[in-house]
Amino acid sequence: MPELRKDPIVGRWVMISVERGKRPADFVSSVQLRKKGGFCPFCPGNEYTTPPEIIAFRPAATEPDSPGWTLRVMPNKFPALQIYGDLRRMGEGIFDKMNGLGAHEVIVETPDHNLSLSTMSEKAVEDVLWACYLRLTDLKKDHRFKYVLVFKNEGEVAGASLEHSHTQIIALPIVPKHVKEEVDAARQHYEFKERCIFCDVINQELEDGKRVIYENDKYVALAPFAPRAPFETWILPKRHESRFAPSEKSFAELAEIMQKILKQMDKILDTPPYNFVLHTSPFYNEVNEYYHWHIEIMPKLTKIAGFEWGSGFYINPTPPEESAKFMREAGV
Amino acid sequence: MPELRKDPIVGRWVMISVERGKRPADFVSSVQLRKKGGFCPFCPGNEYTTPPEIIAFRPAATEPDSPGWTLRVMPNKFPALQIYGDLRRMGEGIFDKMNGLGAHEVIVETPDHNLSLSTMSEKAVEDVLWACYLRLTDLKKDHRFKYVLVFKNEGEVAGASLEHSHTQIIALPIVPKHVKEEVDAARQHYEFKERCIFCDVINQELEDGKRVIYENDKYVALAPFAPRAPFETWILPKRHESRFAPSEKSFAELAEIMQKILKQMDKILDTPPYNFVLHTSPFYNEVNEYYHWHIEIMPKLTKIAGFEWGSGFYINPTPPEESAKFMREAGV
Repeated sequence: MPELRKDPIVGRWVMISVERGKRPADFVSSVQLRKKGGFCPFCPGNEYTTPPEIIAFRPAATEPDSPGWTLRVMPNKFPALQIYGDLRRMGEGIFDKMNGLGAHEVIVETPDHNLSLSTMSEKAVEDVLWACYLRLTDLKKDHRFKYVLVFKNEGEVAGASLEHSHTQIIALPIVPKHVKEEVDAARQHYEFKERCIFCDVINQELEDGKRVIYENDKYVALAPFAPRAPFETWILPKRHESRFAPSEKSFAELAEIMQKILKQMDKILDTPPYNFVLHTSPFYNEVNEYYHWHIEIMPKLTKIAGFEWGSGFYINPTPPEESAKFMREAGV
Repeated sequence: MPELRKDPIVGRWVMISVERGKRPADFVSSVQLRKKGGFCPFCPGNEYTTPPEIIAFRPAATEPDSPGWTLRVMPNKFPALQIYGDLRRMGEGIFDKMNGLGAHEVIVETPDHNLSLSTMSEKAVEDVLWACYLRLTDLKKDHRFKYVLVFKNEGEVAGASLEHSHTQIIALPIVPKHVKEEVDAARQHYEFKERCIFCDVINQELEDGKRVIYENDKYVALAPFAPRAPFETWILPKRHESRFAPSEKSFAELAEIMQKILKQMDKILDTPPYNFVLHTSPFYNEVNEYYHWHIEIMPKLTKIAGFEWGSGFYINPTPPEESAKFMREAGV
C-alpha cells in the first residue's frame, strides 16, 4: 500500500509509492549534453555582448569584460526586475501591488562551455559559492530588498535558456512564499519546542541513516522524508546556521558535498536536467535560533501534473529511502 | 517597469511583465491533436479492459460495462491510493505518516475518442459536471475521506497518459496544502471583515471589468489579479456558494461558461495542453460563509523553472488584463 507522508516543516502531505517504487532506469531523462556551435554570450571573447561585469575572478593583469576570467557575475541582459527607483507600494481596490524593483544577476561559473557544476574542478564550485555569498552580502546592503533568491536551472527542461553553466540571483523587495512559509513554521516550532525543527530532522536522520545520502564534517545530504519528486535532495549544515555563509571562512566542504551529489545524479540518472534553490533567512532577522539554511536540489524526471500545481498534493513514485540508497551506491 | 502583485487570498507575490507582455502568438503550443490508431481502453468495445464501472450514463436497455454509454466512471486501473482498509496514523520519530488510503476514479467524458471538453456538445459537458457531483456526493459518505480532488490533465505536456478525454477524481484522508491554505486564509479574512474574500474579489472585478473574460447569469470567468502563469483563468459562482453543487438543480450555465473558456483558449492558443482543478470546501465544514468554490484552469504554455517550484515566486510574462482582452476578443 502507498503511504501518505507529511513534511515536518511546512505540513505538506505527499503520496509515496513505497512498494514497487520507480528505479533510476525507469525515468527517461532528457540528457543534458552540451553542444558546441552557435554563438554563446557567456564564452570568453564575447564579454562585449553582456552588460558590464559586477565582479569577476580574474588575474590582476587582465581588464574587466575581457577574457582571462575564471568566473564572471553580471546583470541579466533581460532582467525580470529593474534595479533603479524607489519602492512604491500601491493599492488597487482590495488588491496590493508594488513596482517590480529588484536585481537580477547571472554568475557564469566557468569559461569552459563544456563543463557543468558536476564536471568542473571542486575549486571552481567553491568559487561559485563564494560568488553567491559575495553578491548576497552586497545586495543585502540595499535596504529596498528583503530577500535574495539564488537558484540554478540546468538544462532546457529545467528552464535554462542558455546552456553555458550559470547560476542566477534575484534580489526581491518581498520574501517568496515558500521561504516565508518555512520561516514562519520554523519559528512556530521554536516557540513551542525551543528547538530548530531542521536540527531535529538532521539529528533523527543521522541517527537513522536510511535517508542519508552523504555527509562530511560539516554538511549532510538527505533525501527528505516527504519529497515532492523522485531524488529530491537537501543539503544542510549539520550545526545550526540560520543564514548562508562560509563555514570557518571556507566553502570547501560545501563544494565537496554539492559536487558529490550532482555527480551521483549524473551517474545514476544519466545527466538529468535539474534545479537547485538556496533557502536562507530573510534579511530582517538573519541570525536566529529557529531557521536553518539549506539547498534543495530537484532533478526534473517527472512532469508536474495538474492536480499537483492546483492542489499542492504531490504523488512521488520513488521512496526517499530507495533514492538515497541508489545515490549512496552510485560509487562516485 | 514590471509589477509585483499579491494574490489577495493566499498572499503569494508574482512578478508580472506589464509592458511588452507576451501575446498568444509568442507561445509555442504543443498542439493536442487526437490521433486515431493504437488501442484505447476508454473507447466503446474495450470496456472489458477497465475495472467495472461505478456509474455510467447509458440507455436502460444496455448492460453495464458494454457499449452504448455516453459517459462512464470507473476506478483507475493503476490507482495512486487504495480504497480498502482502515486509516492508520503513524509516527516515525518526529515524522507523521498514514497509509495511502483513498479512492482514485476516472470519468470517461465521451465515447468519441476525437472529442474534447471544448468540442463535445454542451450537454455532454453538463453530464461531466453531474458525474463529478454524483461521485463527490457518494465519496463524502465515506468518513475516512476529508477531501475529494477533481482535476483534469489535458494533453501529454499537462500530464495526461491517455489521450481519450477524461477527468480524474481522488478522494483523500487529508486536505491538500493549497486548498487548506485558501480555506484558512478565507476564514481569517471572514473573521476580520465578516465578508467572503472571493465575493469581494468578484464584486470588484465585475465593477472594474478589465480582468473579466466572460459572465453569464450565474458564473463569472476571470483572469486573476496575480496569476502564476499566462492565461490562468478562474470560474466562480457569482453568488456566495461554499461547496461545488448544481445551481437550481442545473449545471447548464456552468457547462456553458466552462466550454466557452476552453473554446477561447483553443482558438487563441492553438489547442494548448491544460490542467483544471476544482477547489471546494473540505467535508468537515462544507457549508460556510467564508469559502467560495471555484475552478482554476491553467494552459501549459511556459515551463515552470527552478526558482518557481523552489520559492513559490512566479514570473508571468502576460498581464491578466491583456490575457482577458485576448480571450474576450477571441470571438467564440
